[in-house]
Amino acid sequence: MTFVSFTTDYGLADGFVAACHGVLLRAAPTVRIIDVTHLVPPGDIRRGATVLAQTITSLPRGVHLAVVDPGVGTARRPVVVRAAGGQHLVGPDNGLLLDAADRLGGIEAAVRLPIPAGTPATFHGRDVFAPAAARLALGEELAALGTPLNPSTLVRLPTPHARLGPDGVLDAEVVLVDIFGNVQLAATGSLLADAGLAPPARARLKLEPALGSGPGSAQESAQESGPGTEDERNLEIAVGETFGAVAPGELLLYVDAAGMAALAVRDGSAARALRLAPGDRITLRRARS
Amino acid sequence: MTFVSFTTDYGLADGFVAACHGVLLRAAPTVRIIDVTHLVPPGDIRRGATVLAQTITSLPRGVHLAVVDPGVGTARRPVVVRAAGGQHLVGPDNGLLLDAADRLGGIEAAVRLPIPAGTPATFHGRDVFAPAAARLALGEELAALGTPLNPSTLVRLPTPHARLGPDGVLDAEVVLVDIFGNVQLAATGSLLADAGLAPPARARLKLEPALGSGPGSAQESAQESGPGTEDERNLEIAVGETFGAVAPGELLLYVDAAGMAALAVRDGSAARALRLAPGDRITLRRARS
Amino acid sequence: MTFVSFTTDYGLADGFVAACHGVLLRAAPTVRIIDVTHLVPPGDIRRGATVLAQTITSLPRGVHLAVVDPGVGTARRPVVVRAAGGQHLVGPDNGLLLDAADRLGGIEAAVRLPIPAGTPATFHGRDVFAPAAARLALGEELAALGTPLNPSTLVRLPTPHARLGPDGVLDAEVVLVDIFGNVQLAATGSLLADAGLAPPARARLKLEPALGSGPGSAQESAQESGPGTEDERNLEIAVGETFGAVAPGELLLYVDAAGMAALAVRDGSAARALRLAPGDRITLRRARS
Repeated sequence: MTFVSFTTDYGLADGFVAACHGVLLRAAPTVRIIDVTHLVPPGDIRRGATVLAQTITSLPRGVHLAVVDPGVGTARRPVVVRAAGGQHLVGPDNGLLLDAADRLGGIEAAVRLPIPAGTPATFHGRDVFAPAAARLALGEELAALGTPLNPSTLVRLPTPHARLGPDGVLDAEVVLVDIFGNVQLAATGSLLADAGLAPPARARLKLEPALGSGPGSAQESAQESGPGTEDERNLEIAVGETFGAVAPGELLLYVDAAGMAALAVRDGSAARALRLAPGDRITLRRARS
Repeated sequence: MTFVSFTTDYGLADGFVAACHGVLLRAAPTVRIIDVTHLVPPGDIRRGATVLAQTITSLPRGVHLAVVDPGVGTARRPVVVRAAGGQHLVGPDNGLLLDAADRLGGIEAAVRLPIPAGTPATFHGRDVFAPAAARLALGEELAALGTPLNPSTLVRLPTPHARLGPDGVLDAEVVLVDIFGNVQLAATGSLLADAGLAPPARARLKLEPALGSGPGSAQESAQESGPGTEDERNLEIAVGETFGAVAPGELLLYVDAAGMAALAVRDGSAARALRLAPGDRITLRRARS
Repeated sequence: MTFVSFTTDYGLADGFVAACHGVLLRAAPTVRIIDVTHLVPPGDIRRGATVLAQTITSLPRGVHLAVVDPGVGTARRPVVVRAAGGQHLVGPDNGLLLDAADRLGGIEAAVRLPIPAGTPATFHGRDVFAPAAARLALGEELAALGTPLNPSTLVRLPTPHARLGPDGVLDAEVVLVDIFGNVQLAATGSLLADAGLAPPARARLKLEPALGSGPGSAQESAQESGPGTEDERNLEIAVGETFGAVAPGELLLYVDAAGMAALAVRDGSAARALRLAPGDRITLRRARS
């Protein structure tokens, strides 16, 4: 029983995902495929990397195929990375795979995949990456798939910002907004605790002035206005363990199921209430009680 | 060969569904998972319950995992329900599972699942429900999973309204709108027949005044106006067995594939034409011919 | 190991896809199902046919179940088609299956499926087509499933327009727009070469005047205006093999991974930039250099 996880920005309306499933299953008919998501926004490598990294520790051991590849057809390298423990990640060398490899314990080895002559230059998921994943699933050695490369040369995404200052102020970037509007920050739960924000507590939340990229920023701003004035951007909120720690409609700071600091509105959307989107910055500090 | 069906409001853009697949497959690698839907609107327990109930009779025997759980992290109970015939349903005690259990013949037994200390309070799908579904799929007894509870204490959703009056008027609530805009009512096909509305026939359809929650109600109302005046809310329509019973663009009252009374527009959307959404009310009576 | 591919316009929010999976797996529990897509726009037979045809050659041998069926409940025939090489396609006789059959080498035989008495008239995917696919997956002979019909009587969709004139002008219809906004034309790569447009080259692209069906045509036209004046509708663009052949934001004419001529904007959307949608027409000719 070999598992292959599969993460892309291919969407579900075209046949791209199925074509890759087909290539995998023609080569390795007993493989079991787990679709992580195919709704990464087109070309959004950061989101693809984050979703894969936060899901991979729940997945069975196997091969992890990921394709968010705006550089397909350019000089970017197709690669396979072997993580500590022996699991493999297959995809473009653009940073997509490395957060997940880190979660698995770091990178042990990597190879560059060859692109056979005559391969169409626009669908490496089907023509380069899925065939490599199938060979790994069938038990081939990493070294047989390509030419070794130095893992330190692999492209890395910038690390999302999270810093606890000597003044006790935690400054953190928004990393992810999920379907429920929960806003995940770059700060880990332990950094939150270091800031004196282990539950139960109260926190001062301050939004950076340059807001406006989240939901409600544009066409919705008339009906549903997010925080605007200085006071509105400077809130005191509860720190708790569960949504049940606050009343419906109230804001909560908590450690989410991926172990990261996050903001939620119970029975609502924190992203909408605060107009936050990935890349935005906030600060948090313990409120005087 | 054990099957686990899976229904949530997790969406397909995050890794939540895959994390649960992963937990299931790590514990029970030979399980086959059937995704019912993961596009229940966030927190919409009624829709999740209805879709699961109307699908479950087509599914193979097995374990049915369902998580639409706005109360995660509150006092609501995590439960397993055994339906008549021995199939199990796993999920929150908020009404989500019971329509489906009824379709399987009613509830035989139920247990409350324990929440292990240290479990994150926000992702019980991954941390509480999927592990329980895996254990059931592996053949563990219900009694081994938790503490028995009295099935009569399980939370039930209100029954959608459907009543045939002595005057022959059938008053019914809209339960479900599907992708094609077909509008399913709370009335069964046999109640429709009791109202003298077995095909072929003609029906008087009357929309309740308080409309406006369906598509076309807000931003679309300028371009595409639904029924507004008294006459427009009081229509005579065909009762037939198939979409082919009416011309393209015409309204049809029929018994749908789930055995429920429904409204359709051939090659169009009844929900849009009539501006109907779940919770709206209509009346139907046999038209004098 | 038998594979069944599955293509519909059922969407992913209702339980329709799962009900068909369930019917297949109850009858044939070891079958492996590959979902091609279920997001064909409701009733869009042309898109369903094209996506299936362009995916099928990547899929493992098996049974191909496809249901985009606006005529369910009318006189249209439910059919099974056997393609050259022995693979089967199951679905409505409305043109949906034939492009795919052609890709597999053409039609060898076909039967009309019976509709058992008492079958609901609105969900033939579950009640007629999936059961037939399961029987084929279990090894039953085509002849056992229905009454033979003459393949020449099967309904065919009109062939999308593509013609190379004696003046060297290639006139082609837009067939498909994918998630990335790439615009696939009805012209094959070899017709493109016949027009003198093998890479590297420059092409004159002329948009037909009657535009406006693509993205950006309506509500977006204020913010993001597509080509409007004569000069703007008459562009010189690069012909290349890969997105890397042009700078970000630039238009490219290339042969896509399905072997068809296509237009792309590197790191952008050609459909949006040119306001093109399926059914629109363009002309291409070699630019004088």
